Amino acid sequence: MITTKKSEIKILEQGHITTAEGFYAGGIHCGLRRKKLDFGWLYSETPAAAAAVYTQNSFQAAPLKVTQDSIGKNQTLQAVVVNSANANACTGYIGLENAYHTRKKTAEKLGIAEELVGVASTGLIGVQLPMEKINHAIEQIVEMENDPEKFEEAILTTDTVTKHVAVQLEIEGKTITIGGAAKGSGMIHPNMATMLAYVTTDAAVEPDALQQLLSQTTDKTYNMITVDGDSSTNDTVLAMANGKKGNTPLSEHHPEWEKFKNAFAAVSKILAKKIAKDGEGATKLIEVQVMNASSTENAGKVAKAVISSNLVKTAIYGADPNWGRVICAVGYSEVPVDPDKVDVYLGHIQVVADGLPSEFSEDEGTAYLEGSQIIVKIDLKQGSAEATAWGCDLTYDYVKINASYRT
Amino acid sequence: MITTKKSEIKILEQGHITTAEGFYAGGIHCGLRRKKLDFGWLYSETPAAAAAVYTQNSFQAAPLKVTQDSIGKNQTLQAVVVNSANANACTGYIGLENAYHTRKKTAEKLGIAEELVGVASTGLIGVQLPMEKINHAIEQIVEMENDPEKFEEAILTTDTVTKHVAVQLEIEGKTITIGGAAKGSGMIHPNMATMLAYVTTDAAVEPDALQQLLSQTTDKTYNMITVDGDSSTNDTVLAMANGKKGNTPLSEHHPEWEKFKNAFAAVSKILAKKIAKDGEGATKLIEVQVMNASSTENAGKVAKAVISSNLVKTAIYGADPNWGRVICAVGYSEVPVDPDKVDVYLGHIQVVADGLPSEFSEDEGTAYLEGSQIIVKIDLKQGSAEATAWGCDLTYDYVKINASYRT
Repeated sequence: MITTKKSEIKILEQGHITTAEGFYAGGIHCGLRRKKLDFGWLYSETPAAAAAVYTQNSFQAAPLKVTQDSIGKNQTLQAVVVNSANANACTGYIGLENAYHTRKKTAEKLGIAEELVGVASTGLIGVQLPMEKINHAIEQIVEMENDPEKFEEAILTTDTVTKHVAVQLEIEGKTITIGGAAKGSGMIHPNMATMLAYVTTDAAVEPDALQQLLSQTTDKTYNMITVDGDSSTNDTVLAMANGKKGNTPLSEHHPEWEKFKNAFAAVSKILAKKIAKDGEGATKLIEVQVMNASSTENAGKVAKAVISSNLVKTAIYGADPNWGRVICAVGYSEVPVDPDKVDVYLGHIQVVADGLPSEFSEDEGTAYLEGSQIIVKIDLKQGSAEATAWGCDLTYDYVKINASYRT
Repeated sequence: MITTKKSEIKILEQGHITTAEGFYAGGIHCGLRRKKLDFGWLYSETPAAAAAVYTQNSFQAAPLKVTQDSIGKNQTLQAVVVNSANANACTGYIGLENAYHTRKKTAEKLGIAEELVGVASTGLIGVQLPMEKINHAIEQIVEMENDPEKFEEAILTTDTVTKHVAVQLEIEGKTITIGGAAKGSGMIHPNMATMLAYVTTDAAVEPDALQQLLSQTTDKTYNMITVDGDSSTNDTVLAMANGKKGNTPLSEHHPEWEKFKNAFAAVSKILAKKIAKDGEGATKLIEVQVMNASSTENAGKVAKAVISSNLVKTAIYGADPNWGRVICAVGYSEVPVDPDKVDVYLGHIQVVADGLPSEFSEDEGTAYLEGSQIIVKIDLKQGSAEATAWGCDLTYDYVKINASYRT
């Protein structure tokens, strides 16, 4: 669980990917989608320390390889371009050429080195990028105008809302900002998903420390969300720190590292929850808290098994306090549990005590599940480790959206 | 894959759990469900060699413990009673007492030893069995009347059809029959599921050989089906061989063992496919064939990842030849694959060649997916191992059934 000392971190719910100083972003419609914005860019005034985490899917899409190449050079990026509607995945040699071309063309337009550009794509698998449209889009990048909402819109696919936030904290007496934007709605599952997330900060951060922080944070946030159990080919979380604030570069040796770490995690956690809440067809955000497990890994496995269960998800959609399905998912999580010790709560209502049904009012249970934010708490009473996972209910609309995504 | 020499094995599509000689079965309504039959029994004229495979869920239901106890005594059973509507799971000490009481009472009614009786329950988790109704039901068992359809009905929950089959083959020149019946519709996933399957044969089989055969067969059949990824607390596959035909007890040392093994596997495979086809809300049976994998285990993992993907399941429901979702599931199966080698077919239509899109007619793809039996073939070109998994599409009705199972 991420502990954020509220007093030290100020959350700006209306904050954006460019709330941190020196970052600019925008987006346009270039014709990949019918009407919606489909091409966005993120730009830093100066080269920024950069870190990324990529999908573990074997069919990693072409743009991820190009971004990896860029960051691999100097752990630095100055710009990222993203298109939606087309994943540039399973597109072979031509797809890779197209991604490299996108990087080159963007670098030329911005007058920066190629290795300072990252590229990303999200959308349909197996279709070549229409490069004429992409080329035309790149021509229209205006790097120093700032319209983050357009960027945040341009990266969406089946999402119904944009997802953005910023937090502020003091480092060396200066106000540091960390901003974030993400997309993701379907094909969402632990170990990255059809999701993209961008985090920017005007703090200076050591590149290695940034990479480590991003990896750790991803495990506890983005990798703990699931919409449908499908991990995609394009998922990327990317962080940029441009050092605009002139602080001593942050790393674990900095006295205020913990504070920065918590603030960074808060951004990721908020974005992750926003993705889960906007899951395809979802009407409810579900949070599964597992406590007193024998290890963090086991706590995570149990939380993921429950949040991924179609039967739990449909029961919550139907506001049915059918806790047997929660217990069932705990039981097949492959984590050894003691069935006679497990407690389960729906919100504040205890439904299982020591593996046996608790007396509770079905009506009260149903009333709780009719809310839009559901917490399922599972106490394993085995140790002291804990984990939290986020997801959403499974609804008619999920089926509708996915039975006709292309047509 | 199970190879059955058609010439040696005769499949009786209309065969039943009691087609093998000396087996009797029946069922009644005892008031656990509103109208449908809810209590069934299976009886062998003489004690039969018995073997069983149980759920791996940590919250194993009480009746499974009792059946294990019975079989544990002498690897022999003569009768099994099953109730639907109530799983007798998460029912603690009282639930266990009730299961033991059911066994005792059944043994008394039949005039046989307690250890010759197996018990099973399927249905809602966390509710105590209404023992008055169960006691009354046991009183009504008529062991030597034969009405297998009633047994096959009484074990159902959300199933829409009964599932039964029998096969015949020659052993030592005698016609041997293997009959089977199963139930299962929701909470169905590899490693057993809310499914019960019973297999009976009038051949004599060495108990250890029967157990080994059942375990191996279960891995390749019942454990390769999924409806919704949820493995239940009550799953059991149980086999009884009463030796009525007087053959030399079968084991791997018997010259006709292979033939028997294939016939036994055929029964399990047919029942497994019937369960997948009758998945909750399903309109299509999906078969995923993985070939040329580096190991059988890896082939199985890939097949299960694809058959379990909600996105694949909804695409097939919507008759959308969106092969990107198949590739995506292959990619996150955690099996190392070479993305540049993978071929994918929908039926006879090749949609991916060496990891790249094949030219194919979308209309032809859609037409194929509008059928009711869909085969997805994945060639990994890594080795020579193969595996097949079965499942079904994900539909509005799945959500409907599971958002309101209890209400």
